[in-house]
Amino acid sequence: MGKIKVAAFSVSLDGFGAGQDQGLENPLGVGGEELHTWIVTTKMFHRMTRKEGGTEGVDNDFAEKSMENIGAWIMGRNMFGPVRGPWPDNEWKGWWGEEPPYHVPVFVLTHHAREPLKMKGGTTFHFITGGIESALEEAKKVANGKDIRIGGGVSTIRQFLQAGYINEMHLVFSPIFLGSGEQLFSGIDMSALGFNQVQKINGEKATHIIATKS
Amino acid sequence: MGKIKVAAFSVSLDGFGAGQDQGLENPLGVGGEELHTWIVTTKMFHRMTRKEGGTEGVDNDFAEKSMENIGAWIMGRNMFGPVRGPWPDNEWKGWWGEEPPYHVPVFVLTHHAREPLKMKGGTTFHFITGGIESALEEAKKVANGKDIRIGGGVSTIRQFLQAGYINEMHLVFSPIFLGSGEQLFSGIDMSALGFNQVQKINGEKATHIIATKS
Repeated sequence: MGKIKVAAFSVSLDGFGAGQDQGLENPLGVGGEELHTWIVTTKMFHRMTRKEGGTEGVDNDFAEKSMENIGAWIMGRNMFGPVRGPWPDNEWKGWWGEEPPYHVPVFVLTHHAREPLKMKGGTTFHFITGGIESALEEAKKVANGKDIRIGGGVSTIRQFLQAGYINEMHLVFSPIFLGSGEQLFSGIDMSALGFNQVQKINGEKATHIIATKS
Repeated sequence: MGKIKVAAFSVSLDGFGAGQDQGLENPLGVGGEELHTWIVTTKMFHRMTRKEGGTEGVDNDFAEKSMENIGAWIMGRNMFGPVRGPWPDNEWKGWWGEEPPYHVPVFVLTHHAREPLKMKGGTTFHFITGGIESALEEAKKVANGKDIRIGGGVSTIRQFLQAGYINEMHLVFSPIFLGSGEQLFSGIDMSALGFNQVQKINGEKATHIIATKS
């Protein structure tokens, strides 16, 4: 079986994984885009968003690697879109256009049932109302021995962390202070959860941390 | 007038500036020593503790720089020693032996009055019972236009930050998770406090962040 992992997840110096007031105007919350400067400038991200150019180097290598060998994704509903409450219709199809960058099944945690949504390029969004265990079970069925990536946001990652399911965390510390928003580590004892192997790799715009259980 | 600054202050990835259960056995709290690996291996720290050798490079440059141009220090009582409550006698003279590495006046915040303590090499510990404003006022009188360094610990730095007195923060992020202890940023909005100029410099063992007000 593959790993259950978090990859390329951006965190501010004060521990926030997203800014405040997420919504259509600010998908990552106020100030949240700055968290991701390290990735949006890379060659990988340019290619993914069908643009020319982009930087090569350590940050790009990590960006590329974060998309490799993934058999399924799990994400919180807020990462899928700004719609809250019951789905009014099937109009919202994610932030990523007709062909999302996943190319595998993506399990979206929600309290509100919805039919699976098949997109171009191999991505199908499945809406899971049974919580993280149920999402993990479904993801394992289709991951085909590859890794399962817990995409985000903060609340989803915290749930998987606290339940002990995550084997590997690749966090990317961006040199900014967000001041408010969703704090990744608040009340979470990474060391007590067993993440005692910590590797630091300096990127061009951010610091990469790989935490695994010892 | 010089700056009022924090320098070479170590923080864990999850935002802790000291471990839990500080005391004589663990001056920096449980796990706290690991926070300071980056500095204790440097040439500057070796020299300061009268040992041969030590590393040169970025970490050492920052360690050296953190001790330059300082006219006065302010520190919390727990940084001065493990004694709590009223001073039973004048026995405790700090963690640093007969000749502390400060060589200037050091103002120690405490609720319990005590006579000034003159050490070898120019360090005199003054015990301040009037709070941070009173300490700052005394420090300014003697700093002679040089910088005033707020040494620590977390609680002291938080008080000076929240009161808006600090001009410059040099924080050093060590690649470890402490999980518990005193969290530096909890409830503190560095961005709202005006620290919007953030510079990142990769050291050998840790990441240096210089935050100043824009």
